[in-house]
Amino acid sequence: MKKLINDIGTVLTESLDGFAAAHADIVTLGAEHQFVRRKQTKPGKVALISGGGSGHEPLHAGFVGHGMLDAACPGQVFTSPTPNQMLAAAESVDGGAGVLFIVKNYSGDMMNFQMAAEMLDRENATVIVNDDVAVENSTYTTGRRGVAGTLIVEKIVGAAAERGDSLAALKSLGDAVNSATASMGVALSSCTVPAAGKPTFQIGADEMEMGVGIHGEPGRRRVKLGSANEIAAELAGACLKDLSLKPGREVILLVNGFGGTPLLELYLMVNAAHKVLAGAGVKVVRHLTGPFVTSLEMAGCSITVSAVDVDALALWDAPVHTAALRWGC
Amino acid sequence: MKKLINDIGTVLTESLDGFAAAHADIVTLGAEHQFVRRKQTKPGKVALISGGGSGHEPLHAGFVGHGMLDAACPGQVFTSPTPNQMLAAAESVDGGAGVLFIVKNYSGDMMNFQMAAEMLDRENATVIVNDDVAVENSTYTTGRRGVAGTLIVEKIVGAAAERGDSLAALKSLGDAVNSATASMGVALSSCTVPAAGKPTFQIGADEMEMGVGIHGEPGRRRVKLGSANEIAAELAGACLKDLSLKPGREVILLVNGFGGTPLLELYLMVNAAHKVLAGAGVKVVRHLTGPFVTSLEMAGCSITVSAVDVDALALWDAPVHTAALRWGC
Repeated sequence: MKKLINDIGTVLTESLDGFAAAHADIVTLGAEHQFVRRKQTKPGKVALISGGGSGHEPLHAGFVGHGMLDAACPGQVFTSPTPNQMLAAAESVDGGAGVLFIVKNYSGDMMNFQMAAEMLDRENATVIVNDDVAVENSTYTTGRRGVAGTLIVEKIVGAAAERGDSLAALKSLGDAVNSATASMGVALSSCTVPAAGKPTFQIGADEMEMGVGIHGEPGRRRVKLGSANEIAAELAGACLKDLSLKPGREVILLVNGFGGTPLLELYLMVNAAHKVLAGAGVKVVRHLTGPFVTSLEMAGCSITVSAVDVDALALWDAPVHTAALRWGC
Repeated sequence: MKKLINDIGTVLTESLDGFAAAHADIVTLGAEHQFVRRKQTKPGKVALISGGGSGHEPLHAGFVGHGMLDAACPGQVFTSPTPNQMLAAAESVDGGAGVLFIVKNYSGDMMNFQMAAEMLDRENATVIVNDDVAVENSTYTTGRRGVAGTLIVEKIVGAAAERGDSLAALKSLGDAVNSATASMGVALSSCTVPAAGKPTFQIGADEMEMGVGIHGEPGRRRVKLGSANEIAAELAGACLKDLSLKPGREVILLVNGFGGTPLLELYLMVNAAHKVLAGAGVKVVRHLTGPFVTSLEMAGCSITVSAVDVDALALWDAPVHTAALRWGC
């Protein structure tokens, strides 16, 4: 294992200290590194809290700030945060209008966020993200996995929270965005969890894992590496099929790097995905390209297609000021 | 070689097509993919043009837009663009106040930009960036290499061009920023140039290349992998030594990923670099962290320290709207 670390036991806390120092204008750390929160919260606004295992940076801490999350609870690498973290975060950022949890559909996260929701003596609701169309059920999941589409849910719901939408309205919007969002990924290499010290899976020099999860979980099948066009056809095709989009429908296209694939290739995949979407008559109205929901240093990418109406598009375009996404302010 | 590509011969053009589609609000492509330019240029403003081999994305095309570059000329991977590309770019974006070329110090780039400067029938000047303190002379370089500090030169000079500084003033500012900027990097793995099809260099499972260049060129020495703290001490220490900074001096700290190292580790390196700089009494007033000047999928990072006065800091903070850097607009 080759990593820029000091000690396996302190990877997360040292990284969070660096993150907090680098973005001191936006975030502060909770006690004992339990959560990352906005420096300033807005009274009367619903508080948005997400979290999950680390190793997917910039998700989620990189999306804390104006227009997106109020707090993020980081677990150890690929390990759920605890209910105590979520309760401490809720205590810290609740503005009196309730708390919305945004949770990726993994068994550990679901159990711990549910426990926090039950223990929390404030009005709360939960949006579950399960945008990965590759497989039903998986190593850590019952049902579909939550992957890169989480970013889109957090951005759109975050903007709605900023304009003052109620908890019930945000829960409903989050569910709707999740339903309109589909993702699928491919891995060319494995990732290595620091505490494990060896690659999560083995893969041949000419193979790819089609439909991989963001923890290196198995996808649909292990096959010979295809061309970018073939891969884009399968990934974007699976998203289109899942969403049953009619020609003329407007979408956001997110080409997400898993960590080890350079931008040169990600933009090539954007070009390839465009052809697939154009072929289906779908209109890409917004783009996001880069490593946003990663799997440590895994090589590969995912394609996310999110259908948007006028309101969702305006919320996507609304100002955001976080470590990893910033526009309009 | 495992990459998300269709054909080795069209990697660059397909990637540029994807880039232009993804950022159609900011850039347009020149004919025959000769350059990437701002969609809108400002008459009476000095035009800033950079470029170099591809494979370092988002450098340079990702820095084209308001507040930074007017155009970028992409060569094939790790190969200089041609003088014709630079002349076509200059023709396209010159606003009548002259052209400033920003060139990383590699023999191919230097020769071709110099040829373009001589052929160009418009007032022009050139800023040479050579911020890499690791070694004098290298595989492709006479003198020091230009690496991640290029981004800082492009941002600060770009902001000054936007406010209307003259060509002579920008040339002088660019030289000053370059002199105040030092970088050094470390690689844990090699990169693979698509046309070569195999890793640029071999490195042992427990080794690192200390002082590596952004094309995988040799650095100071090949040694056993050290801890993040040891690596930060050497990288940041070399920058501090080169700049001879007095205690109390204000700096921008750029922790740059080479492509294959996750953000989790880069932020851990921020934390480690902070301790080194604090120990020297230097004050980090701004941060930038992420893969900005990459070497395809190489694992590793570089540390850049750039000393700033009040004017340079204001120019760093000035609005920028490019694919890879965006704030204030």
